[in-house]
Amino acid sequence: MTLFSKIIAGEIASYKILEDAYFYAFLDVFPLVEGHVLIVPKNETDQFFDLEDSYLQKILVFAKPIAKAIEQSFPCNRCGISVVGLEVPHAHLHLMPINSANDINFTRDKIKVTPELLASVQRKIVAAL
Amino acid sequence: MTLFSKIIAGEIASYKILEDAYFYAFLDVFPLVEGHVLIVPKNETDQFFDLEDSYLQKILVFAKPIAKAIEQSFPCNRCGISVVGLEVPHAHLHLMPINSANDINFTRDKIKVTPELLASVQRKIVAAL
Repeated sequence: MTLFSKIIAGEIASYKILEDAYFYAFLDVFPLVEGHVLIVPKNETDQFFDLEDSYLQKILVFAKPIAKAIEQSFPCNRCGISVVGLEVPHAHLHLMPINSANDINFTRDKIKVTPELLASVQRKIVAAL
Repeated sequence: MTLFSKIIAGEIASYKILEDAYFYAFLDVFPLVEGHVLIVPKNETDQFFDLEDSYLQKILVFAKPIAKAIEQSFPCNRCGISVVGLEVPHAHLHLMPINSANDINFTRDKIKVTPELLASVQRKIVAAL
């Protein structure tokens, strides 16, 4: 069972944003910026492009209202997308508010967060959904 | 008319990879790595998440065989995805073969390419489609 499957199953706590039959969205606890959300398919597939077409067809439509809520909640030019996937062997998509290409640069240091900050970010995004 | 619409219309030359009724895929001529492909919807929409659901449903299914062809053509861990969009006001999705998070870091210097190299990259990907 991957780390993300444990999160989806509730065995590991997460700051949940939205869920449907196919996907689970929650805050990245090692965020690049405030408002950094992960979207994970509920089936375990390592590589993003090995997801079945039914998932590929749905994931961006699932992501859209979350992206709009992120844009409303944090000052930004727009919500960016990244699929890297070199760390956890369970396909996932990053959404984050960006003002510059450095906001979506995974080689830089993550921001420092506290549980209180993450809970506040969660409340903002969920309220804007 | 955006730069990308001129490319789609053939007014500006491009290293075309694949095209259907909705999308046009071609090589980024300022690539981060060899095998860096752009996918552009044929309608002009600035922000990616302002695309109609019909486009959001189709773009990753259109991208999938291109991603697989990129993975076959260039030694890599996998094909990554990025949507940043701060430079050209026409929604687009980047695909690129990645071995590290730095391969998908838009703040670093682009690689040097020649028309011959780009034509060779185009041939490799198209042959693997």
